[in-house]
Amino acid sequence: MIKQRKLYTAFVILLVMILSGCSCKSLTKSDPLPSWSEGIAKTHIIEFVQTVTDKSSPDYIQPAERIATFDNDGTLWTERPVYFQLLFAIYRVKQLAPQHPDWQTTQPFKAALEGDMQTLATSGEKGLLQLIMATHAGMTTDEFAVIVNDWLATARHPRFNRPYNELVYQPMLELLTYLRTNDFKTFIVSGGGIEFMRPWTQEAYGIPPEQVIGSSIKTKLEMRDGIPVLVRLPEINFIDDKADKPVGINQYIGRRPIAAFGNSDGDLQMLQWTAAGDGKRFMMLVHHTDAQREYAYDRDSHIGKLDIALDAAEKNGWMVVDMQLDWKVIYPAN
Amino acid sequence: MIKQRKLYTAFVILLVMILSGCSCKSLTKSDPLPSWSEGIAKTHIIEFVQTVTDKSSPDYIQPAERIATFDNDGTLWTERPVYFQLLFAIYRVKQLAPQHPDWQTTQPFKAALEGDMQTLATSGEKGLLQLIMATHAGMTTDEFAVIVNDWLATARHPRFNRPYNELVYQPMLELLTYLRTNDFKTFIVSGGGIEFMRPWTQEAYGIPPEQVIGSSIKTKLEMRDGIPVLVRLPEINFIDDKADKPVGINQYIGRRPIAAFGNSDGDLQMLQWTAAGDGKRFMMLVHHTDAQREYAYDRDSHIGKLDIALDAAEKNGWMVVDMQLDWKVIYPAN
Repeated sequence: MIKQRKLYTAFVILLVMILSGCSCKSLTKSDPLPSWSEGIAKTHIIEFVQTVTDKSSPDYIQPAERIATFDNDGTLWTERPVYFQLLFAIYRVKQLAPQHPDWQTTQPFKAALEGDMQTLATSGEKGLLQLIMATHAGMTTDEFAVIVNDWLATARHPRFNRPYNELVYQPMLELLTYLRTNDFKTFIVSGGGIEFMRPWTQEAYGIPPEQVIGSSIKTKLEMRDGIPVLVRLPEINFIDDKADKPVGINQYIGRRPIAAFGNSDGDLQMLQWTAAGDGKRFMMLVHHTDAQREYAYDRDSHIGKLDIALDAAEKNGWMVVDMQLDWKVIYPAN
Repeated sequence: MIKQRKLYTAFVILLVMILSGCSCKSLTKSDPLPSWSEGIAKTHIIEFVQTVTDKSSPDYIQPAERIATFDNDGTLWTERPVYFQLLFAIYRVKQLAPQHPDWQTTQPFKAALEGDMQTLATSGEKGLLQLIMATHAGMTTDEFAVIVNDWLATARHPRFNRPYNELVYQPMLELLTYLRTNDFKTFIVSGGGIEFMRPWTQEAYGIPPEQVIGSSIKTKLEMRDGIPVLVRLPEINFIDDKADKPVGINQYIGRRPIAAFGNSDGDLQMLQWTAAGDGKRFMMLVHHTDAQREYAYDRDSHIGKLDIALDAAEKNGWMVVDMQLDWKVIYPAN
């Protein structure tokens, strides 16, 4: 009888817990950011999330308005020795070279074929665009997604010898999950190609294609044997960088983020745009300070230059994460 | 003792129901589409939803892939006597006329000021664009949202004498809710202006700004007294119509819908694009057949012309909804 009563009481407690929406998560009170060192960055992130989700707080923000935007290169995954998309373009140049004998003697293709990164770097934005147009256009959108996935499955990072989509930052993965657990909608807002990212962001970050904003080339609907396909054209549609990041955010999301995360001057305007909204806001920069475990660079870097935005962060009180100090680990375990 | 046992049993049953995800909805088995007449349209919609959400069905589709796209004008709300956005543009012309004395003698502005819809209609797409550029650009994005809301709050439909955002179709509202209840993500894919729709789609349709795709003009980030604003420019960015509807879907959503809803030839390619995907699909056209309760028009109409798409629907077995027969009511109760 007593045993039965205890069982009964246990059931009632369990029932009350379920009905009151009490989940296992809140029971264990586990650390939502285990890869973050105890310190000001972790504390401020948690304080921000607790404040805007606390209905009794004057800074409470409705779930629908909890929009968080993340730069990708250097913020969610590594961007060194060069942007991974450039390495993908080089891979594509090599793949397509047999059909383009002139590339053996024409820049920037010659440099790409020879792996001459120095020359490639000096070809600047114009050279980069030439590479992108020659390697990212001419196929259907479905075909391009297959090409990206094939590359990810075979290519390895020269230093870490891991697939590129494994070189994502474990602390940022935890941050993404933590935000989503608190009803944030997480978006990528990257200068990288939108269709270069979409095939793998769900698996890598838990971010679905419709929440990925990036640079794009134009596409065109064509009927092939009565079947509609979208063909990728060698023509710029949108460059999602710097002052155009707020443009992209407005175009795709149509509302202002309450939190924004970047790592370079290319993210400055996204953070300014986020900061200029009403109510509680959170702006953060990842500072690459860890040459041993990843890379160390900022004001003088060609890739991921962090100069004006670093000054702006200090002036405006935005959070600057010191990778070396604030992150216990960089990448997920193998 | 027996009483206690019964209580205990009831608790266990309740607990099992909760744990197995049995919700009140499925208990009551209420009609999800009460404004739809019993008939082939309603039956097919429900069959489609039940099939793709049934884990034991070979046609089961993961929630993440349950993307449904809806045209707006003539599919979710009325588009007669003319597109409501044109009426908004005319309202804006009258509002701005004092600053543009030349409009008194220049077309299409003269016709707009005089309410001469005949002349406006003959000014064609070029005239319409002129009106849009003159009335939809020059302000910030925030200012434009206020202007749209002000218009909705004061303007009334000439025939129904109701605010335009009340002239939404009750059966389609039920369909949107029914799909979302079944873990569909509902998007608008409209030729109408994206920033003309976003201020009111959440309230009218339960569709948030980030799930609204439409035509757009370009915007530019400017700093005004140290505060970043997005200024609307008199320059076309994207026309989300006909063959560019799949382009817009790919650009914004990045995956193919499994269900698409339209009402005119402008939606043909969206339905073709949806139909061409793998797995179970649902394509539907709203046929305006009800002159008494709304309007009746199709093949010969200037607005919402339904001709090629109607033939395609017959050929491909897409659902054609007869407003007069299939819908018990048109608009929500006052």
